[in-house]
Amino acid sequence: MHAYRTHTCGQLTASDSGIQARLSGWVHRKRDHGNLLFVDLRDHYGVTQCVLDISSPVFATLEKARPESVITVTGKVVSRSADTINPRLPTGAIELYVAELEIQSIADPLPIQVYGEQEYPEDMRLKYRFLDLRREDVHANMMLRSKVISYLRRAMQDQGFTEFQTPILTASSPEGARDYLVPSRIHPGKFYALPQAPQQFKQLLMVAGFDKYFQVAPCFRDEAGRADRSPGEFYQLDFEMSYCTQDDVFAAIEPVLEGVFKEFGNGRKVTPAPFPRIPYAESMLKYGSDKPDLRNPIVIADVTEPFRGSGFGLFAKLVDKGGVVRAIPAPGAAGQPRSWFDKMNEWARENGAGGLGYIQFAADGPKGPIAKNLEPERVAAIKSAANLKDGDAVFFACDKEDVAAKFAGLVRTKIANEMDLLEKDVFKFCWTVDFPMYERNEETGQIEFSHNPFSMPQGGMEALLNQDPLTINAYQYDIVCNGVELSSGAIRNHRPDIMYKAFEIAGYSAAHVEEHFGGMLNAFKFGAPPHGGSAPGIDRIVMLLADEPNIREVILFPMNQQAQDLLMQAPAEVTPERLRELHIKLDLPKPKKEVKAE
Amino acid sequence: MHAYRTHTCGQLTASDSGIQARLSGWVHRKRDHGNLLFVDLRDHYGVTQCVLDISSPVFATLEKARPESVITVTGKVVSRSADTINPRLPTGAIELYVAELEIQSIADPLPIQVYGEQEYPEDMRLKYRFLDLRREDVHANMMLRSKVISYLRRAMQDQGFTEFQTPILTASSPEGARDYLVPSRIHPGKFYALPQAPQQFKQLLMVAGFDKYFQVAPCFRDEAGRADRSPGEFYQLDFEMSYCTQDDVFAAIEPVLEGVFKEFGNGRKVTPAPFPRIPYAESMLKYGSDKPDLRNPIVIADVTEPFRGSGFGLFAKLVDKGGVVRAIPAPGAAGQPRSWFDKMNEWARENGAGGLGYIQFAADGPKGPIAKNLEPERVAAIKSAANLKDGDAVFFACDKEDVAAKFAGLVRTKIANEMDLLEKDVFKFCWTVDFPMYERNEETGQIEFSHNPFSMPQGGMEALLNQDPLTINAYQYDIVCNGVELSSGAIRNHRPDIMYKAFEIAGYSAAHVEEHFGGMLNAFKFGAPPHGGSAPGIDRIVMLLADEPNIREVILFPMNQQAQDLLMQAPAEVTPERLRELHIKLDLPKPKKEVKAE
Repeated sequence: MHAYRTHTCGQLTASDSGIQARLSGWVHRKRDHGNLLFVDLRDHYGVTQCVLDISSPVFATLEKARPESVITVTGKVVSRSADTINPRLPTGAIELYVAELEIQSIADPLPIQVYGEQEYPEDMRLKYRFLDLRREDVHANMMLRSKVISYLRRAMQDQGFTEFQTPILTASSPEGARDYLVPSRIHPGKFYALPQAPQQFKQLLMVAGFDKYFQVAPCFRDEAGRADRSPGEFYQLDFEMSYCTQDDVFAAIEPVLEGVFKEFGNGRKVTPAPFPRIPYAESMLKYGSDKPDLRNPIVIADVTEPFRGSGFGLFAKLVDKGGVVRAIPAPGAAGQPRSWFDKMNEWARENGAGGLGYIQFAADGPKGPIAKNLEPERVAAIKSAANLKDGDAVFFACDKEDVAAKFAGLVRTKIANEMDLLEKDVFKFCWTVDFPMYERNEETGQIEFSHNPFSMPQGGMEALLNQDPLTINAYQYDIVCNGVELSSGAIRNHRPDIMYKAFEIAGYSAAHVEEHFGGMLNAFKFGAPPHGGSAPGIDRIVMLLADEPNIREVILFPMNQQAQDLLMQAPAEVTPERLRELHIKLDLPKPKKEVKAE
Repeated sequence: MHAYRTHTCGQLTASDSGIQARLSGWVHRKRDHGNLLFVDLRDHYGVTQCVLDISSPVFATLEKARPESVITVTGKVVSRSADTINPRLPTGAIELYVAELEIQSIADPLPIQVYGEQEYPEDMRLKYRFLDLRREDVHANMMLRSKVISYLRRAMQDQGFTEFQTPILTASSPEGARDYLVPSRIHPGKFYALPQAPQQFKQLLMVAGFDKYFQVAPCFRDEAGRADRSPGEFYQLDFEMSYCTQDDVFAAIEPVLEGVFKEFGNGRKVTPAPFPRIPYAESMLKYGSDKPDLRNPIVIADVTEPFRGSGFGLFAKLVDKGGVVRAIPAPGAAGQPRSWFDKMNEWARENGAGGLGYIQFAADGPKGPIAKNLEPERVAAIKSAANLKDGDAVFFACDKEDVAAKFAGLVRTKIANEMDLLEKDVFKFCWTVDFPMYERNEETGQIEFSHNPFSMPQGGMEALLNQDPLTINAYQYDIVCNGVELSSGAIRNHRPDIMYKAFEIAGYSAAHVEEHFGGMLNAFKFGAPPHGGSAPGIDRIVMLLADEPNIREVILFPMNQQAQDLLMQAPAEVTPERLRELHIKLDLPKPKKEVKAE
């Protein structure tokens, strides 16, 4: 018989009754019935009930073994009587009568319990993560994460992509967030950087001729932690492909995303591919965001015209100055009490708006302060533009276009939450496309890059030469699920000539481009294929699937928000010898003087 | 028609003749026949011959396009005449008659050529790695690496293992090689470390109840580069399992290794599982190494007794002082000229030995200086012990046991190389097992750990309490292929009580153990399962399969031996602001004074 187990704790069923079996696992729960001791023995695979009679020579030993001790038990598998069968447990039809017991590891009293539903502070959970990970929900999240990643790999391979590992010790990248630096021992005064993303490497892979690359890629950013962002490291499903159009990129990744959400969505509905493509301008208008949550049925409308020169002077004046008015419907809210609208108004003021005007379309006609000051045909025009019916209410955001759009988006979300309008049990995907290449800096009046300077402008060189830069869109896109941006992506600008010109429009000289982006530019000068890609965030995919709002619930050994690993005690002090070897010394902030109360 | 391609450059065959097709790729090779221009167009998938007539309006453009320019060609697929079919090329039955041409990217004159066999210095290849990677052999190596890793993942999953990502920003580990350090911005004066291996995390995963873990794990060591070791980062197939014996570990990984070498070995033979298990002591005796190359048919034998008190005084005296004599057969070498034996002798002196005695078993009897001084029955005993037959020669290593064993191992390798005895086209696996737990430090006389202090001693606590420590073996093992150590592994010591005792024997107090290994020890106090594992080196597996002696041939973007990334320019200087943020300053070595020649 095997030293530790003939079966796992999730394996034995009624058909095994009568056999001798050996199980090993953790003492999950003990129930002492005086002359009978029941032990739920747990391992990775399940739980099996083990029974010990008081006559057994090992009764006392097992009775004393604290929860989470590790034991090996040997004995006969016995079918339970019909009334004691537990149908919720795969092993619920049997129990093991313990004849032999071996204690593998005695557990000290536990700082956090594995059995039961008790909540613990996060820092305590992270310090004893090896216990926390034994808990059913946390264990299940980690298994989900692993299965999701495994699925993503297979699906990408099925789409013809090849996985490569790009370097982790590399050069500081010129753009983006803050890098982590690694001092070099061999090259005094020089530093490696950990990659914020393998962006340059994946483009180099295309230049090197590898056509379709992907990687479950560790990425590193020295940024503050948030609920949805882990300090330190995170993982992306990084991919890139050559000789592709934007539609090819979408067609490659859509079945992967649809597939993984179907496979692990527990029956929740998933937008079927092809996902809707929403131009940036349309998204900002209709949803007040470039990350629209399409579970929210509310669609924002522009109602600038009905307010232009109208009797509602506040908006009319702003419109005259170039402002816009956006209407955010609140379906079925006409009958809400005055206090509800007041509360919305208060919320708007707390969020930086002057207030939140509204109209109630009651059965007996439009109501509210705005309706009173607005000509009926204008009210009717609003009703029509915003697709409202009797019984609905509508809120207004009036400001400069970008401010009004964003605030309307907040209102849209607020209404949906207040009225519980979000569609349930569904993953709604869309692409945001046609991001503008440039925008005007309002303070300086200069033309600047809107988003990613390295995306290919739509229309290529011809557009750069002949079009008003502010009308040029980029082949740049975001993939959005339930209002969460899973990733940005782009068809890259692989042409040095177009890159020089694109930067020139934004006010940069060729010398500047060469100084800052010379590496990539140099590679492009030896035959670069058209290419593009994206990099959906894996932690975020798992968060959505696990329905966890906190990213630390889907990472094995996460750091806390202060970027500390409480289990391994990182970061930590190091010896002066180590620092000398690395040619650095500490340059600590001066201790703050204590302020004495006088 | 797609903007870039309807087919890849490896796709078109005779059955496509007559269709219009579009291809994109790199100009691999051009042959200008005056009125006909042949272009071999290359992409990731293959090469297609494209033809252009001088009458074409794009003839001049294509004629001028330098090699490695990226182009898109459109035209008719035409079957080649029987005499121009190239059977070595999958697309060799057709060619594409170019009607349209688009230049996607013009290549500058190349610093290194893609087409052809020219060799370039390594630093040049690494600086232009994106060109180097386009070359057929390098490209093939990278694809092999990717396929090997993908196979390993599937095979591990088939064995019931689950892949998890362990942290990369973590704590400095107390043992082993030098860590890379990462200064913390948020915690002044503190540092993260990059993991040398996820050893502690994988053991914590077992303590957390995850039973069977694996990871294609990036590992980081700040060590000098060697041919078979990349400076910086490397990858291991890290795995660990719970409730397992040593045999379970072997049974889990053997089919994975046998499988991957069979799958990608190009017909080379592979040791079938189960692989031979060779105890450490036996391996040191028979092969003079704990990493035996079993392709080498030579088996070393102990011939101490035949020399004890013999007429060959040099050895007899050393044996009297406790030395041993090892016989290293040289099959069929009896007829080698005197000069050959002299050369061996010279080689031995260059390698630190006093010389290399030998006997030639010629048809007319034993020959050579030793045979002359040795009684015939002793010569016969040697012949029998070393399993020699007429026509063989035998060399001798005489010294203290460990020195003699290692030198005999060198001789064994030397003979095999000299005589070309290594079995060809085969991957010979074995396990080295039963490593001693302790050894005596000859200088101090102290008992020390031989290898890994965290392995479980065979016999457990009882052995520690009752046995001479120098006779205790550990559950520790190496997996060896063709004399290359793919990895060490062990059944871990999961019992705090046994760990305290094991360290006590090696002279360490409980306080020392707690101070240095407290994290793991603490975790073991809350119910730890018996567990063990290993971590075969992935780069080494790919090196063996690709038959490449240099690890940089199987890594996409390797650093050079001086730990520099010549393509991305890492490591590099950073701004003083970045250093201030990280609370460090440089502490550079003083510049060396120039020594003036006078």
